Amino acid sequence: MTDCIFCKIVAGEIPSYTVYEDDVVKAFLDISQGTPGHTLVIPKKHVPDLFAYDEDLAAAVFSRIPKIARAVKNSNPAIKGMNVINNNGKVAYQSVFHSHIHLIPRYSNDDDFKMIFKDNSGKYNDEKYRKIQQAIKDQLEDEQ
Amino acid sequence: MTDCIFCKIVAGEIPSYTVYEDDVVKAFLDISQGTPGHTLVIPKKHVPDLFAYDEDLAAAVFSRIPKIARAVKNSNPAIKGMNVINNNGKVAYQSVFHSHIHLIPRYSNDDDFKMIFKDNSGKYNDEKYRKIQQAIKDQLEDEQ
Ligand SMILES: [Zn+2]
Ligand SMILES: [Zn+2]
Repeated sequence: MTDCIFCKIVAGEIPSYTVYEDDVVKAFLDISQGTPGHTLVIPKKHVPDLFAYDEDLAAAVFSRIPKIARAVKNSNPAIKGMNVINNNGKVAYQSVFHSHIHLIPRYSNDDDFKMIFKDNSGKYNDEKYRKIQQAIKDQLEDEQ
Repeated sequence: MTDCIFCKIVAGEIPSYTVYEDDVVKAFLDISQGTPGHTLVIPKKHVPDLFAYDEDLAAAVFSRIPKIARAVKNSNPAIKGMNVINNNGKVAYQSVFHSHIHLIPRYSNDDDFKMIFKDNSGKYNDEKYRKIQQAIKDQLEDEQ
């Protein structure tokens, strides 16, 4: 896409600190380095978000992720874990609308990146869980 | 694995609000419902984290994710986006050591789930980026 910054990175029109590239994906350092080693993996093909992937594209892109994740982890002995994150939609913090997967290395006591999970389990009863479950199952039946 | 809660869910020894299941994955509601519709997708095979996936397992598991993500999104018109998150290691908030992918639907103005990305771009110069880039590239060359 003409005005997509990640398509321009794929085309080499904008430089990037590339760590891996093949026919399907390109992986490069996030310029903001949420933590040191923060890497983005993007499909070379322009797709706006995960909802737009078909099965083959998901298989192709994500089959590359473990080896890239291992390489990022092993690049620095201080890395103790990793958040692998794909944000979809403005409300979910997506800012570039070319799908990308964040690999965010985590260090002991780092506080540059945080996720806050609220535990809402006490707020749900069996009926409420079942209602949500059924709504999702109905959609999956439509899809197949 | 004998003492793995997710292996027990796969085996049906512990009940779950399952929304999708096939030979490779099982998807069920996270009992904590970070936001309404919060779903976990797990490989049926016990693997501790993403670092332990080979290419075939990653392709198989993640090829299922877009259709499950679409179904969760379409299950409720109030859902405007989604965080797809895979945490690896205690330091990255992993609490069950059977790999799982969180699908966290996002709503306008929801504050039940938060991610805080720090922008560290001002702290890096070209030399620092290149050093990190080279360390990761070296690992990828070892892997291939
Ligand atoms: Zn693009
Ligand atoms: Zn298990």
